[in-house]
Amino acid sequence: MRIGELSGATGVPVPTIKYYLREGLLPAGERTHANQVRYDERHLRRLRLVRALVEIGRVPISRVRELLAAVDSPDRGLDSTLGMMNRALRPDDIEPADPDEVRSAIERLRALGYENLPEQGYVQQVAKALATLHRFGHPNMQGLLESYAAVAMTIAEIDLATVAGIGDPEATVEAALVGTIVGEALLVALRRLAHGTVSGRVLGTKGG
Amino acid sequence: MRIGELSGATGVPVPTIKYYLREGLLPAGERTHANQVRYDERHLRRLRLVRALVEIGRVPISRVRELLAAVDSPDRGLDSTLGMMNRALRPDDIEPADPDEVRSAIERLRALGYENLPEQGYVQQVAKALATLHRFGHPNMQGLLESYAAVAMTIAEIDLATVAGIGDPEATVEAALVGTIVGEALLVALRRLAHGTVSGRVLGTKGG
Repeated sequence: MRIGELSGATGVPVPTIKYYLREGLLPAGERTHANQVRYDERHLRRLRLVRALVEIGRVPISRVRELLAAVDSPDRGLDSTLGMMNRALRPDDIEPADPDEVRSAIERLRALGYENLPEQGYVQQVAKALATLHRFGHPNMQGLLESYAAVAMTIAEIDLATVAGIGDPEATVEAALVGTIVGEALLVALRRLAHGTVSGRVLGTKGG
Repeated sequence: MRIGELSGATGVPVPTIKYYLREGLLPAGERTHANQVRYDERHLRRLRLVRALVEIGRVPISRVRELLAAVDSPDRGLDSTLGMMNRALRPDDIEPADPDEVRSAIERLRALGYENLPEQGYVQQVAKALATLHRFGHPNMQGLLESYAAVAMTIAEIDLATVAGIGDPEATVEAALVGTIVGEALLVALRRLAHGTVSGRVLGTKGG
Protein backbone atom coordinates (compact mmCIF):
# COMPACT_ATOMS: atom_id res chain seq x y z
CA MET A 1 0.00 0.00 0.00
CA ARG A 2 1.00 3.62 -0.43
CA ILE A 3 1.66 6.05 2.38
CA GLY A 4 -1.83 7.58 1.94
CA GLU A 5 -3.41 4.17 2.48
CA LEU A 6 -1.24 3.60 5.55
CA SER A 7 -2.55 6.91 6.85
CA GLY A 8 -6.15 6.02 6.03
CA ALA A 9 -5.88 2.65 7.80
CA THR A 10 -4.46 4.10 11.02
CA GLY A 11 -5.73 7.68 11.18
CA VAL A 12 -2.11 8.89 11.47
CA PRO A 13 -1.57 11.92 9.17
CA VAL A 14 0.94 11.51 6.30
CA PRO A 15 3.36 14.18 7.67
CA THR A 16 3.45 12.31 11.01
CA ILE A 17 4.18 9.02 9.22
CA LYS A 18 7.03 10.77 7.35
CA TYR A 19 8.36 12.04 10.67
CA TYR A 20 8.28 8.50 12.11
CA LEU A 21 10.14 7.25 9.01
CA ARG A 22 12.83 9.93 9.44
CA GLU A 23 13.13 9.09 13.15
CA GLY A 24 13.54 5.40 12.33
CA LEU A 25 10.41 4.37 14.24
CA LEU A 26 9.03 2.89 11.06
CA PRO A 27 11.24 0.95 8.60
CA ALA A 28 11.55 2.42 5.11
CA GLY A 29 9.12 1.17 2.48
CA GLU A 30 10.09 -0.61 -0.67
CA ARG A 31 10.86 1.64 -3.62
CA THR A 32 9.15 0.10 -6.65
CA HIS A 33 10.20 0.42 -10.30
CA ALA A 34 7.46 3.03 -10.75
CA ASN A 35 9.48 5.12 -8.32
CA GLN A 36 6.76 4.80 -5.73
CA VAL A 37 7.22 3.64 -2.17
CA ARG A 38 5.20 0.64 -1.05
CA TYR A 39 4.35 -0.38 2.50
CA ASP A 40 3.02 -3.70 3.73
CA GLU A 41 1.32 -5.35 6.72
CA ARG A 42 4.56 -5.14 8.70
CA HIS A 43 4.53 -1.33 8.42
CA LEU A 44 0.87 -1.23 9.36
CA ARG A 45 1.44 -3.29 12.52
CA ARG A 46 4.46 -1.19 13.50
CA LEU A 47 2.62 2.08 12.87
CA ARG A 48 -0.32 0.90 14.99
CA LEU A 49 2.07 0.19 17.86
CA VAL A 50 3.84 3.56 17.49
CA ARG A 51 0.47 5.33 17.39
CA ALA A 52 -0.65 3.61 20.61
CA LEU A 53 2.64 4.44 22.36
CA VAL A 54 2.51 8.10 21.33
CA GLU A 55 -1.22 8.88 21.36
CA ILE A 56 -2.45 6.76 24.25
CA GLY A 57 0.72 6.14 26.24
CA ARG A 58 2.17 9.63 25.68
CA VAL A 59 5.57 7.95 25.56
CA PRO A 60 8.36 10.30 24.34
CA ILE A 61 9.93 9.43 20.96
CA SER A 62 13.28 8.40 22.51
CA ARG A 63 11.55 5.83 24.74
CA VAL A 64 9.45 4.64 21.78
CA ARG A 65 12.69 3.88 19.95
CA GLU A 66 14.06 1.88 22.90
CA LEU A 67 10.82 -0.05 23.21
CA LEU A 68 10.74 -0.90 19.53
CA ALA A 69 14.33 -2.18 19.78
CA ALA A 70 13.17 -4.43 22.63
CA VAL A 71 10.19 -5.67 20.60
CA ASP A 72 12.58 -6.48 17.74
CA SER A 73 15.11 -8.25 19.91
CA PRO A 74 14.48 -12.01 19.58
CA ASP A 75 16.42 -12.80 22.78
CA ARG A 76 14.26 -10.59 24.91
CA GLY A 77 11.22 -12.29 26.45
CA LEU A 78 7.79 -10.73 26.01
CA ASP A 79 7.53 -10.42 29.79
CA SER A 80 10.66 -8.29 29.88
CA THR A 81 9.43 -6.11 26.99
CA LEU A 82 6.08 -5.57 28.74
CA GLY A 83 7.95 -4.64 31.93
CA MET A 84 9.88 -2.03 29.97
CA MET A 85 6.64 -0.70 28.50
CA ASN A 86 5.10 -0.50 31.96
CA ARG A 87 8.03 1.58 33.18
CA ALA A 88 7.66 3.87 30.15
CA LEU A 89 3.98 4.39 31.02
CA ARG A 90 4.65 5.28 34.64
CA PRO A 91 3.87 8.94 35.34
CA ASP A 92 6.87 11.03 36.43
CA ASP A 93 4.90 12.77 39.13
CA ILE A 94 4.59 9.96 41.68
CA GLU A 95 5.76 11.59 44.90
CA PRO A 96 8.60 9.80 46.66
CA ALA A 97 7.56 8.16 49.91
CA ASP A 98 9.49 7.72 53.14
CA PRO A 99 12.06 4.88 52.61
CA ASP A 100 10.91 3.04 55.76
CA GLU A 101 7.32 3.20 54.55
CA VAL A 102 8.41 1.88 51.14
CA ARG A 103 10.28 -1.04 52.71
CA SER A 104 7.27 -1.86 54.86
CA ALA A 105 4.93 -1.65 51.85
CA ILE A 106 7.18 -4.00 49.86
CA GLU A 107 7.17 -6.50 52.73
CA ARG A 108 3.39 -6.41 53.03
CA LEU A 109 2.97 -6.77 49.27
CA ARG A 110 5.37 -9.74 49.12
CA ALA A 111 3.38 -11.43 51.86
CA LEU A 112 0.31 -10.94 49.66
CA GLY A 113 1.91 -12.74 46.70
CA TYR A 114 3.28 -9.74 44.80
CA GLU A 115 6.52 -10.45 42.94
CA ASN A 116 8.97 -8.53 40.70
CA LEU A 117 8.34 -5.39 42.76
CA PRO A 118 10.23 -2.28 41.66
CA GLU A 119 11.71 -0.03 44.35
CA GLN A 120 10.28 3.03 42.63
CA GLY A 121 7.10 4.20 41.03
CA TYR A 122 3.91 2.50 42.08
CA VAL A 123 5.44 0.97 45.20
CA GLN A 124 5.94 4.56 46.36
CA GLN A 125 2.31 5.30 45.58
CA VAL A 126 1.20 2.30 47.65
CA ALA A 127 3.43 3.42 50.53
CA LYS A 128 2.00 6.96 50.39
CA ALA A 129 -1.58 5.66 50.27
CA LEU A 130 -0.99 3.41 53.27
CA ALA A 131 0.56 6.30 55.23
CA THR A 132 -2.42 8.52 54.39
CA LEU A 133 -4.86 5.78 55.42
CA HIS A 134 -2.97 5.42 58.66
CA ARG A 135 -3.07 9.17 59.31
CA PHE A 136 -6.57 10.02 58.09
CA GLY A 137 -8.41 6.77 57.66
CA HIS A 138 -10.98 5.20 59.90
CA PRO A 139 -9.71 2.14 61.85
CA ASN A 140 -12.09 0.04 59.68
CA MET A 141 -9.80 0.79 56.73
CA GLN A 142 -6.64 -0.82 58.00
CA GLY A 143 -7.52 -4.04 56.13
CA LEU A 144 -8.06 -2.24 52.83
CA LEU A 145 -4.63 -3.21 51.43
CA GLU A 146 -5.40 -6.92 51.79
CA SER A 147 -8.81 -6.67 50.07
CA TYR A 148 -7.54 -4.42 47.30
CA ALA A 149 -4.39 -6.47 46.72
CA ALA A 150 -6.54 -9.53 46.05
CA VAL A 151 -8.89 -7.65 43.71
CA ALA A 152 -5.99 -6.04 41.83
CA MET A 153 -4.47 -9.47 41.26
CA THR A 154 -7.79 -10.64 39.79
CA ILE A 155 -7.81 -7.63 37.49
CA ALA A 156 -4.22 -8.32 36.39
CA GLU A 157 -5.21 -11.91 35.60
CA ILE A 158 -8.08 -10.64 33.44
CA ASP A 159 -5.68 -8.22 31.73
CA LEU A 160 -2.98 -10.79 31.06
CA ALA A 161 -5.50 -13.37 29.84
CA THR A 162 -6.70 -10.73 27.38
CA VAL A 163 -3.25 -10.19 25.87
CA ALA A 164 -1.58 -13.58 26.37
CA GLY A 165 -3.53 -15.21 23.55
CA ILE A 166 -2.63 -12.62 20.91
CA GLY A 167 0.67 -14.24 19.92
CA ASP A 168 2.29 -11.60 17.72
CA PRO A 169 4.67 -9.59 20.00
CA GLU A 170 3.93 -6.23 18.39
CA ALA A 171 0.16 -6.63 18.72
CA THR A 172 0.63 -7.94 22.28
CA VAL A 173 2.60 -4.90 23.38
CA GLU A 174 0.07 -2.63 21.69
CA ALA A 175 -2.89 -4.37 23.36
CA ALA A 176 -1.15 -4.35 26.75
CA LEU A 177 -0.54 -0.63 26.42
CA VAL A 178 -4.12 0.17 25.44
CA GLY A 179 -5.41 -2.14 28.18
CA THR A 180 -3.17 -0.59 30.83
CA ILE A 181 -4.12 3.02 30.09
CA VAL A 182 -7.71 2.75 28.92
CA GLY A 183 -8.43 -0.05 31.41
CA GLU A 184 -7.31 2.21 34.24
CA ALA A 185 -9.66 5.02 33.18
CA LEU A 186 -12.46 2.46 32.80
CA LEU A 187 -11.83 0.86 36.19
CA VAL A 188 -11.63 4.18 38.05
CA ALA A 189 -14.88 5.37 36.45
CA LEU A 190 -16.70 2.07 37.06
CA ARG A 191 -15.65 2.02 40.73
CA ARG A 192 -17.12 5.50 41.25
CA LEU A 193 -20.33 4.54 39.45
CA ALA A 194 -20.53 1.28 41.42
CA HIS A 195 -20.34 3.32 44.64
CA GLY A 196 -23.62 4.98 43.62
CA THR A 197 -25.23 1.61 42.93
CA VAL A 198 -24.07 -0.15 46.09
CA SER A 199 -24.57 2.91 48.31
CA GLY A 200 -28.23 3.02 47.28
CA ARG A 201 -28.62 -0.65 48.22
CA VAL A 202 -26.67 -0.55 51.49
CA LEU A 203 -27.60 2.88 52.86
CA GLY A 204 -30.62 3.89 50.79
CA THR A 205 -33.67 5.00 52.74
CA LYS A 206 -36.39 2.47 52.01
CA GLY A 207 -39.42 3.93 50.33
CA GLY A 208 -37.79 7.38 50.64
CA MET B 1 -10.02 21.65 74.84
CA ARG B 2 -8.42 24.86 73.62
CA ILE B 3 -7.80 25.77 70.01
CA GLY B 4 -4.12 24.72 70.34
CA GLU B 5 -5.17 21.25 71.43
CA LEU B 6 -7.65 21.04 68.55
CA SER B 7 -4.75 21.90 66.25
CA GLY B 8 -2.46 19.33 67.91
CA ALA B 9 -5.08 16.57 67.60
CA THR B 10 -5.72 17.17 63.88
CA GLY B 11 -2.51 18.67 62.52
CA VAL B 12 -4.52 21.65 61.22
CA PRO B 13 -2.65 24.90 62.01
CA VAL B 14 -4.38 27.36 64.40
CA PRO B 15 -4.70 30.12 61.74
CA THR B 16 -6.46 27.63 59.44
CA ILE B 17 -8.83 26.64 62.26
CA LYS B 18 -9.60 30.34 62.84
CA TYR B 19 -10.31 30.70 59.12
CA TYR B 20 -12.71 27.74 59.22
CA LEU B 21 -14.44 29.33 62.26
CA ARG B 22 -14.84 32.64 60.39
CA GLU B 23 -16.16 30.84 57.32
CA GLY B 24 -18.69 28.98 59.46
CA LEU B 25 -17.29 25.53 58.60
CA LEU B 26 -16.71 24.94 62.30
CA PRO B 27 -19.23 26.04 64.94
CA ALA B 28 -18.01 28.60 67.48
CA GLY B 29 -16.55 27.24 70.69
CA GLU B 30 -17.97 27.93 74.13
CA ARG B 31 -16.65 31.08 75.82
CA THR B 32 -15.92 30.16 79.45
CA HIS B 33 -16.02 32.48 82.48
CA ALA B 34 -12.20 32.66 82.32
CA ASN B 35 -12.73 34.33 78.92
CA GLN B 36 -11.23 31.39 77.11
CA VAL B 37 -12.86 29.50 74.25
CA ARG B 38 -13.40 25.78 74.73
CA TYR B 39 -13.94 23.17 72.05
CA ASP B 40 -15.24 19.65 72.45
CA GLU B 41 -15.46 16.30 70.65
CA ARG B 42 -18.07 17.71 68.29
CA HIS B 43 -15.59 20.31 67.03
CA LEU B 44 -12.89 17.68 66.70
CA ARG B 45 -15.12 15.43 64.56
CA ARG B 46 -16.20 18.34 62.38
CA LEU B 47 -12.64 19.60 61.94
CA ARG B 48 -11.48 16.12 60.92
CA LEU B 49 -14.18 16.03 58.25
CA VAL B 50 -13.33 19.53 56.99
CA ARG B 51 -9.63 18.60 56.89
CA ALA B 52 -10.37 15.47 54.82
CA LEU B 53 -12.60 17.42 52.41
CA VAL B 54 -10.03 20.17 51.91
CA GLU B 55 -6.71 18.30 52.13
CA ILE B 56 -7.57 14.96 50.56
CA GLY B 57 -10.66 15.78 48.51
CA ARG B 58 -9.44 19.26 47.42
CA VAL B 59 -13.07 20.34 47.67
CA PRO B 60 -13.50 24.15 47.41
CA ILE B 61 -14.73 25.90 50.60
CA SER B 62 -18.13 26.75 49.10
CA ARG B 63 -18.80 23.07 48.35
CA VAL B 64 -17.54 22.10 51.82
CA ARG B 65 -20.19 24.41 53.29
CA GLU B 66 -22.95 22.78 51.20
CA LEU B 67 -21.79 19.31 52.18
CA LEU B 68 -21.70 20.15 55.88
CA ALA B 69 -25.24 21.51 55.59
CA ALA B 70 -26.25 18.15 54.09
CA VAL B 71 -24.48 16.23 56.88
CA ASP B 72 -26.37 18.35 59.45
CA SER B 73 -29.74 17.93 57.79
CA PRO B 74 -31.60 15.19 59.67
CA ASP B 75 -34.05 14.61 56.78
CA ARG B 76 -31.33 13.86 54.31
CA GLY B 77 -30.35 10.20 54.05
CA LEU B 78 -26.69 9.21 54.35
CA ASP B 79 -26.89 7.74 50.86
CA SER B 80 -27.92 11.12 49.44
CA THR B 81 -25.16 12.92 51.37
CA LEU B 82 -22.54 10.46 50.08
CA GLY B 83 -23.85 10.99 46.53
CA MET B 84 -23.37 14.73 47.01
CA MET B 85 -19.84 14.12 48.29
CA ASN B 86 -19.05 11.91 45.30
CA ARG B 87 -20.15 14.66 42.93
CA ALA B 88 -17.95 17.16 44.82
CA LEU B 89 -14.96 14.82 44.40
CA ARG B 90 -15.45 14.41 40.68
CA PRO B 91 -12.66 16.04 38.69
CA ASP B 92 -13.76 18.90 36.41
CA ASP B 93 -11.58 17.73 33.56
CA ILE B 94 -13.52 14.68 32.44
CA GLU B 95 -13.84 15.21 28.70
CA PRO B 96 -17.39 15.15 27.38
CA ALA B 97 -18.17 12.11 25.26
CA ASP B 98 -20.40 11.76 22.22
CA PRO B 99 -24.06 11.73 23.42
CA ASP B 100 -24.84 8.55 21.47
CA GLU B 101 -21.85 6.83 23.05
CA VAL B 102 -22.98 8.00 26.50
CA ARG B 103 -26.49 6.63 25.94
CA SER B 104 -25.06 3.33 24.78
CA ALA B 105 -22.69 3.16 27.78
CA ILE B 106 -25.61 3.84 30.17
CA GLU B 107 -27.62 1.03 28.55
CA ARG B 108 -24.75 -1.43 28.81
CA LEU B 109 -24.07 -0.46 32.43
CA ARG B 110 -27.75 -0.83 33.38
CA ALA B 111 -27.75 -4.30 31.87
CA LEU B 112 -24.77 -5.07 34.13
CA GLY B 113 -26.68 -4.06 37.29
CA TYR B 114 -25.52 -0.46 37.59
CA GLU B 115 -28.14 1.87 39.07
CA ASN B 116 -28.45 5.57 39.96
CA LEU B 117 -26.29 6.46 36.97
CA PRO B 118 -25.58 10.16 36.44
CA GLU B 119 -25.66 11.54 32.90
CA GLN B 120 -22.36 13.32 33.46
CA GLY B 121 -18.96 12.71 34.92
CA TYR B 122 -17.81 9.12 35.13
CA VAL B 123 -20.41 7.85 32.67
CA GLN B 124 -18.69 10.09 30.13
CA GLN B 125 -15.34 8.58 31.10
CA VAL B 126 -16.73 5.07 30.57
CA ALA B 127 -18.14 6.09 27.18
CA LYS B 128 -14.80 7.59 26.13
CA ALA B 129 -12.89 4.52 27.29
CA LEU B 130 -15.22 2.20 25.36
CA ALA B 131 -14.86 4.32 22.23
CA THR B 132 -11.05 4.23 22.56
CA LEU B 133 -11.10 0.46 23.07
CA HIS B 134 -13.26 0.14 20.00
CA ARG B 135 -10.89 2.30 17.94
CA PHE B 136 -7.51 1.12 19.24
CA GLY B 137 -8.12 -2.02 21.22
CA HIS B 138 -7.51 -5.58 20.17
CA PRO B 139 -10.71 -7.57 19.44
CA ASN B 140 -9.91 -9.61 22.60
CA MET B 141 -10.74 -6.50 24.63
CA GLN B 142 -14.34 -6.08 23.63
CA GLY B 143 -15.44 -8.02 26.73
CA LEU B 144 -13.39 -5.86 29.10
CA LEU B 145 -16.38 -3.79 30.21
CA GLU B 146 -18.22 -6.86 31.46
CA SER B 147 -15.22 -8.18 33.45
CA TYR B 148 -14.32 -4.79 34.88
CA ALA B 149 -17.92 -3.91 35.73
CA ALA B 150 -18.16 -7.05 37.88
CA VAL B 151 -14.82 -6.38 39.62
CA ALA B 152 -15.71 -2.71 40.23
CA MET B 153 -18.96 -3.80 41.87
CA THR B 154 -16.97 -6.11 44.18
CA ILE B 155 -14.68 -3.20 45.08
CA ALA B 156 -17.67 -0.94 45.80
CA GLU B 157 -19.09 -3.64 48.07
CA ILE B 158 -15.78 -3.76 49.98
CA ASP B 159 -15.80 0.05 50.21
CA LEU B 160 -19.38 0.32 51.42
CA ALA B 161 -18.94 -2.51 53.93
CA THR B 162 -15.97 -0.55 55.31
CA VAL B 163 -18.01 2.60 55.92
CA ALA B 164 -21.50 1.23 56.56
CA GLY B 165 -20.64 0.02 60.06
CA ILE B 166 -19.27 3.36 61.30
CA GLY B 167 -22.63 4.78 62.31
CA ASP B 168 -21.85 8.44 63.03
CA PRO B 169 -22.72 10.36 59.82
CA GLU B 170 -19.77 12.76 60.04
CA ALA B 171 -17.22 9.96 60.47
CA THR B 172 -18.96 7.97 57.70
CA VAL B 173 -18.69 10.81 55.19
CA GLU B 174 -15.06 11.37 56.20
CA ALA B 175 -14.18 7.67 55.84
CA ALA B 176 -16.01 7.45 52.50
CA LEU B 177 -14.06 10.43 51.23
CA VAL B 178 -10.68 9.08 52.34
CA GLY B 179 -11.59 5.65 50.97
CA THR B 180 -12.71 7.05 47.61
CA ILE B 181 -9.59 9.13 46.99
CA VAL B 182 -6.85 7.12 48.70
CA GLY B 183 -8.46 3.83 47.68
CA GLU B 184 -8.31 4.93 44.04
CA ALA B 185 -4.58 5.71 44.23
CA LEU B 186 -4.04 2.39 46.02
CA LEU B 187 -6.04 0.39 43.48
CA VAL B 188 -4.36 1.97 40.46
CA ALA B 189 -0.90 1.33 41.93
CA LEU B 190 -1.71 -2.25 42.95
CA ARG B 191 -3.09 -3.06 39.50
CA ARG B 192 0.15 -1.90 37.88
CA LEU B 193 2.24 -3.87 40.37
CA ALA B 194 0.03 -6.93 39.91
CA HIS B 195 0.69 -6.73 36.16
CA GLY B 196 4.39 -7.32 36.94
CA THR B 197 3.56 -10.30 39.13
CA VAL B 198 1.09 -11.98 36.78
CA SER B 199 3.08 -11.15 33.65
CA GLY B 200 6.07 -13.00 35.12
CA ARG B 201 3.88 -16.03 35.76
CA VAL B 202 1.99 -16.04 32.46
CA LEU B 203 4.68 -14.90 30.01
CA GLY B 204 7.92 -15.33 31.93
CA THR B 205 10.66 -17.24 30.18
CA LYS B 206 11.20 -20.38 32.22
CA GLY B 207 14.69 -20.66 33.61
CA GLY B 208 15.60 -17.47 31.71
